[in-house]
Amino acid sequence: MITTTMSDVPLSLSRVLRHGARVFGGSECLTRTEDGFARASFREIGANAARLAKALTRLGIGHGDPVGSLSWNTAAHLEAYFGVPGMGAVLHTLNTRLTGRQLSTIVNHAGDRALIVDGTLVDQIVAIQDELPGVEFVIVVGDVPVDALRKPVHRYHELVAAEDPDFEWPEFDERSAASMCYTSGTTGEPKGVVYSHRSLVLHAMSLLSVQAYGPREDDRWLALVPMFHANGWGIPYAAFLSGASLVLPNRFMSAADIVGMVETARPTLAAAVPTLWALVRDHAREHPADLTSLRVGTSGGAAIPRSLLESLEVEQGVRIVQGWGMTETSSLAGMAVPPPGLAPGSPEDLTQRTASGRVLAGVDMRIVDDHGTVLPWDGESVGEIQVRGPSVTAGYHGDVAAEAFDAGWLRTGDVGTVDDRGFFRITDRVKDVIKSGGEWISSVELEDLLLGDPRVAEAAVIGIPDARWTERPLVFVVARDAVDPAELAGRLADSLARWQVPENWAFVSEIPKTAVGKIDKNALRTRFHAGGVDVVRSRAR
Amino acid sequence: MITTTMSDVPLSLSRVLRHGARVFGGSECLTRTEDGFARASFREIGANAARLAKALTRLGIGHGDPVGSLSWNTAAHLEAYFGVPGMGAVLHTLNTRLTGRQLSTIVNHAGDRALIVDGTLVDQIVAIQDELPGVEFVIVVGDVPVDALRKPVHRYHELVAAEDPDFEWPEFDERSAASMCYTSGTTGEPKGVVYSHRSLVLHAMSLLSVQAYGPREDDRWLALVPMFHANGWGIPYAAFLSGASLVLPNRFMSAADIVGMVETARPTLAAAVPTLWALVRDHAREHPADLTSLRVGTSGGAAIPRSLLESLEVEQGVRIVQGWGMTETSSLAGMAVPPPGLAPGSPEDLTQRTASGRVLAGVDMRIVDDHGTVLPWDGESVGEIQVRGPSVTAGYHGDVAAEAFDAGWLRTGDVGTVDDRGFFRITDRVKDVIKSGGEWISSVELEDLLLGDPRVAEAAVIGIPDARWTERPLVFVVARDAVDPAELAGRLADSLARWQVPENWAFVSEIPKTAVGKIDKNALRTRFHAGGVDVVRSRAR
Repeated sequence: MITTTMSDVPLSLSRVLRHGARVFGGSECLTRTEDGFARASFREIGANAARLAKALTRLGIGHGDPVGSLSWNTAAHLEAYFGVPGMGAVLHTLNTRLTGRQLSTIVNHAGDRALIVDGTLVDQIVAIQDELPGVEFVIVVGDVPVDALRKPVHRYHELVAAEDPDFEWPEFDERSAASMCYTSGTTGEPKGVVYSHRSLVLHAMSLLSVQAYGPREDDRWLALVPMFHANGWGIPYAAFLSGASLVLPNRFMSAADIVGMVETARPTLAAAVPTLWALVRDHAREHPADLTSLRVGTSGGAAIPRSLLESLEVEQGVRIVQGWGMTETSSLAGMAVPPPGLAPGSPEDLTQRTASGRVLAGVDMRIVDDHGTVLPWDGESVGEIQVRGPSVTAGYHGDVAAEAFDAGWLRTGDVGTVDDRGFFRITDRVKDVIKSGGEWISSVELEDLLLGDPRVAEAAVIGIPDARWTERPLVFVVARDAVDPAELAGRLADSLARWQVPENWAFVSEIPKTAVGKIDKNALRTRFHAGGVDVVRSRAR
Repeated sequence: MITTTMSDVPLSLSRVLRHGARVFGGSECLTRTEDGFARASFREIGANAARLAKALTRLGIGHGDPVGSLSWNTAAHLEAYFGVPGMGAVLHTLNTRLTGRQLSTIVNHAGDRALIVDGTLVDQIVAIQDELPGVEFVIVVGDVPVDALRKPVHRYHELVAAEDPDFEWPEFDERSAASMCYTSGTTGEPKGVVYSHRSLVLHAMSLLSVQAYGPREDDRWLALVPMFHANGWGIPYAAFLSGASLVLPNRFMSAADIVGMVETARPTLAAAVPTLWALVRDHAREHPADLTSLRVGTSGGAAIPRSLLESLEVEQGVRIVQGWGMTETSSLAGMAVPPPGLAPGSPEDLTQRTASGRVLAGVDMRIVDDHGTVLPWDGESVGEIQVRGPSVTAGYHGDVAAEAFDAGWLRTGDVGTVDDRGFFRITDRVKDVIKSGGEWISSVELEDLLLGDPRVAEAAVIGIPDARWTERPLVFVVARDAVDPAELAGRLADSLARWQVPENWAFVSEIPKTAVGKIDKNALRTRFHAGGVDVVRSRAR
């Protein structure tokens, strides 16, 4: 029995920091300010992260203790990204858009002992400070009044300035918790994902491949995705492994701000959600701007409309590549980098790039049907996408929501196909897909097809019980003009298999929406089951 | 105390194989044959690796059992690279150039239970088969006579063809041994390095960065470095993670063969030792060839002469990047990819690329002087290079040669400098450097400078005892014309600090060489200490 002779050095974020600060010490982090950029070299970030680690140690924060951060994308936040986990504590990133109630719930659920808060966000903590019994002190970044805070306060810059940067980073089990993030689900109990040093380092390493971001030392990376979301999509750590400089927008997130940052800082990479890319495009249409420094833009968090992808490329010369991931997958787990041999901008290239992603090395993916059968990667079989890997969560903090896992696999809740090269396309959510006679009908696909008809202003599809087929689709339509449902069904029959064509229709004056503007399918289901929907049948199936 | 929620999936080579065979199933492995190339897709390699794993299991090979391979770079060897470790056994790669005595020593030291042998190399095993009591059977690749083998023989292709590819890869501790390799040191006890699944996967991941090989799916990678050396420089595993196709030269390793392979297979990447690159250049000078498919060539294993680097670039359009590594570091641990901003081919660019390497992410490096003091990364301080990391060995099989390690750091035996961007330059070996008055004088640097004098045909420098300075250099010169040592010393004084200029000279008719043509400094030391050297002094120090 042969045993390995290799070193058992643990993976750790402090080693990532040390690499970036030494080998790429001259790379920079530019933080947008009121009137320009504040510059810090990776060497300086490294020194400040060490000072912060030292200060937290002095203040009694210990191994495994959660420390919350409520902050924009700034150099100080980046220092916390390394300093807090590096000394053994756990950085709990807090979404700046949460309500006070949501904020206090997850701070208390995590048990945060301290908070690091950007000066512009202090009011959010003041408003809930009496509901945070476990928070012992608050570290405030920036020169703002803090009189309203009744917790002990430390000024970030004083705290850091008072320490030497000669902190000796401790070495510990790589499975130690490093950071945590709650998913954005607005209902039910809070679901926290706790990343480990191991999972974050492996994730960051996987991002260096050209199949992922492929960052280079001469890149400048505009990180528009908030650092309070899923490790800022892994960009901060990947930057320190690759030497790519960072451009951090701080709180300046309007389309005009972003376009201005591109024109002045000349980033080569950028990452954002599709809605932000749309705002950027719209702004650049009205106020012509030079965005061509960007060699590639990543879009993720939701499907990007093909028209947006095309217009950014054709009008602005910005090539978008679509990524896919979840808080539960440490962010990026798939990237729709097209395979070789497609002419950039060709229809095949664009079609390929509308895939949701291509599975990254380190991520196992499978699609599974209702009966637990694993389906082939043929680009056609539709099932729930499930993933597994060293950077994928296998549970939630406090062991809640066990139903989201299946023997170590994360049930993503997304429904889609995978082709024989690992490109996957998400077509619906598990809870929205219509299970008809053992086959799945995508509600999203039906809605998209219906919206292609000029007479249809809005469309929403839910599944309703059916004695023979288990479920059948019910289509809610807000019509611009009077329209015969048989006609709409006939049009759909051109694009769909016969059994996919819906026969139940409801013409309504409006479709209910959630607070964030999405179709509220739960409200539609409730209305249907309460008998409040007039269903018209287009034909018998 | 927060604990991680992340999955504890182990890193394993079977997951690397599965990724390559599924996501890049259409990528290819081209093995050179007598009259062309044998092609196998990554999908086929994956299926055959599974069949091999199944056959080995059936033959009684178990977890942790060593299985030797004596083979060129071929598809079958690639299948063994995945199949043997994937099922839990340990692939022990054997250097085809070893003597029978060396071969039997390491086969027995490792305890190989079986051997996988290329048909063209069977005679090497036949010659020593009676000295291999632990080897239970031999698997022969290729259709050659095997009558002379007195061990039980299996034909590789029959073995593989008899199995289904539906092997279920076992999951086990990622620190399980995966493969092993003995260092090429010709003296002393055999030193085996045993890689783990963890170390190999982390190493392969680190190679995907553009700071390392940066392979892409549209690359074709000509792997000229033998797969029996240090994981074939990590190329086989990195190919399966990146989708880069492989071109394997088999036993066809002449300069004409290699140039022919470049012209027909059109590889974009290639990796070889400098002597092979020199042969390729020389051949291409005499028989003009088109090598321009190569976007980058890696040179490693020894320092590449600047003239060779320049001539390959200027004459053949082949850009060489220098890499550094050892068997003990899983191969590549540094790569001299120039920093941004240097014009390709400019003098600065070339100088930068004559660095030995730039430390890769995942590798900790330090330089240490005689007293154990860690020296700064200033590009000037000279010390022994020591490394540490999850893909660096912390010992040798059987716990031999403990003196090669210092508190978890591998003492490389190389002496050099590191600059403030992690570029290191190896200037000498620890055993050859001259320790003079607390400072180190590079014997190699002195030799190089002396060889720049047209009157000097050969030069070799050793350290000799000195009452005041501990050691001082003694220079052996084979002169073309009579030359005054004071004159040579005067010339050296133009390039060196005063204390570095040697004052002890010995004019000889020849300099002893080792079997592989290197200067035999041990022989020179022995001759000096036996009083057999006439020392001339150029001046008093």
